[in-house]
Amino acid sequence: MAQSKYLTGDSQAINDFIDRFDVFLFDCDGVLWSGDHVFKGVVETLEFLRAKGKKTIFVTNNSTKSRSQYLEKFAALGIPSVTEEIFGSAYSSAIYISKILKLSPPKNKVFVLGEAGIENELRTENVPFIGGTDPSFRRDITPEDFKGIADGSLLDPDVGCVLAGLDFHINYLKLSHAYQYLRRGAVFLATNTDSTFPMNHNFFPGAGSVSFPLVNMTGERPVALGKPSQAMMDAIEGKFQLDRGRTCMVGDRLDTDIRFGIEGRLGGTLAVQTGVNKKADWEAEGAVAVPAFYVDKLSDLLAAA
Amino acid sequence: MAQSKYLTGDSQAINDFIDRFDVFLFDCDGVLWSGDHVFKGVVETLEFLRAKGKKTIFVTNNSTKSRSQYLEKFAALGIPSVTEEIFGSAYSSAIYISKILKLSPPKNKVFVLGEAGIENELRTENVPFIGGTDPSFRRDITPEDFKGIADGSLLDPDVGCVLAGLDFHINYLKLSHAYQYLRRGAVFLATNTDSTFPMNHNFFPGAGSVSFPLVNMTGERPVALGKPSQAMMDAIEGKFQLDRGRTCMVGDRLDTDIRFGIEGRLGGTLAVQTGVNKKADWEAEGAVAVPAFYVDKLSDLLAAA
Repeated sequence: MAQSKYLTGDSQAINDFIDRFDVFLFDCDGVLWSGDHVFKGVVETLEFLRAKGKKTIFVTNNSTKSRSQYLEKFAALGIPSVTEEIFGSAYSSAIYISKILKLSPPKNKVFVLGEAGIENELRTENVPFIGGTDPSFRRDITPEDFKGIADGSLLDPDVGCVLAGLDFHINYLKLSHAYQYLRRGAVFLATNTDSTFPMNHNFFPGAGSVSFPLVNMTGERPVALGKPSQAMMDAIEGKFQLDRGRTCMVGDRLDTDIRFGIEGRLGGTLAVQTGVNKKADWEAEGAVAVPAFYVDKLSDLLAAA
Repeated sequence: MAQSKYLTGDSQAINDFIDRFDVFLFDCDGVLWSGDHVFKGVVETLEFLRAKGKKTIFVTNNSTKSRSQYLEKFAALGIPSVTEEIFGSAYSSAIYISKILKLSPPKNKVFVLGEAGIENELRTENVPFIGGTDPSFRRDITPEDFKGIADGSLLDPDVGCVLAGLDFHINYLKLSHAYQYLRRGAVFLATNTDSTFPMNHNFFPGAGSVSFPLVNMTGERPVALGKPSQAMMDAIEGKFQLDRGRTCMVGDRLDTDIRFGIEGRLGGTLAVQTGVNKKADWEAEGAVAVPAFYVDKLSDLLAAA
């Protein structure tokens, strides 16, 4: 089994660790903050790394916000950042659709299960879409819907892709539409497949759970564009032209963050214990992923100074 | 591999078949009707069997209707029946909760994902419940909900069971409540786990798909009270005091109806080809279940007369 090196309190080890990397990819929730509470010393740690010439990139699976909406959250929490540093699964999905999937018109529309974040990023990439936050889909299903969905008269023949993200307004009508598009051959994508969504120090249904009825109905799993999918890593590498061997993934979850870094063959992974997983999890038999380094909290890196 | 006997057009074989049984369990959709269209000869076939002294029982996984609501459907379609002949998964679930689960008060409330059919049957069995068709759960989730669900202040401490059926009004708020009850130890039941729901000659999300987000979040599968669950067969046997060896299950689906009859060690199973599965399905390698007998359509049994 791989061994993790504990850095907290060891200035020399922290210095060596920081020197190994040019780029740090940060998960946000559980690393920088929990909900609306920024962890102590996080702003100083980011500034410290930037002052040493390190590139900081924020990688989040939360698809409900676009990069610009995320930037507002960073600002509200007092964390200096710029849009170019933020990489979310909504953006990752939009990039994948426009640059890799490249659906041919007219069958190039995306049926969206999700919130405004996805719509904003699809617009940025000029990808046509329906569904999403459209109020005409935020209602109960009617007998006319059943009929028109079943015979196809209420379906848009131009839909060639279903993109499922976290949708706080999921309902039977949207699931019925999405299922018919998949039956008719639409490509099945998911912004991410997190089963749960952390909120208010508890868990709520995540993007992967909201879209799971479609997996159960079709027997097909979507191509996921969030961590730990390497489609997201490829997109990050393409955008930032980073050297994987000089890049470190920092996160709190073994099954998304740490696995993402390991499978992406990054130079290193750093686990923080301010979120979902703790030391006991990666020391356990059959751990899904083992970080190369770990600290109690992100700001422990300041001890290098 | 087991062999199926084809009865259509063979009067002697049909006579022998009918003589083997005292009780016929019928699936409804795909056997008696498709949507609101009753198949030709179905009424005459049922009358023919009853005239021969056979008991007819209708076994349906559709939990959206109670037995009395189902009886109205039978009447509207011109099929003579009585409540006592009808056995639905909502009723099966209510019986299971009141007679087998027997939750001790005060922690004996059921959180319902589903429609009025479930509520009606729970009321018949004097089982207290919340959720279901209550308008206060048929709305968008709010920041106050996130807070109150997370800290438990909006949860009912008396809920000891989550019952998931087909819910045309499924939403994020209901899924969030249901998940928290399961996290707190509530028993997880499903009226049935059909992945799809046939409607208007097409398919829509079934009860098993609507509740699948909870399976994905908890990693736990519910105890299912519909076909092919033997909990339903036990309930039918208990209610009708039938002799399994003299009972035949008639249905169109291998994975629910035919499997239900075989695993229930009934005297026989009869497949009709007016619904989901056809001869090629049970003759295929690795078929989920093989019926003992099959006909083209239910009314082919009239050739015995």
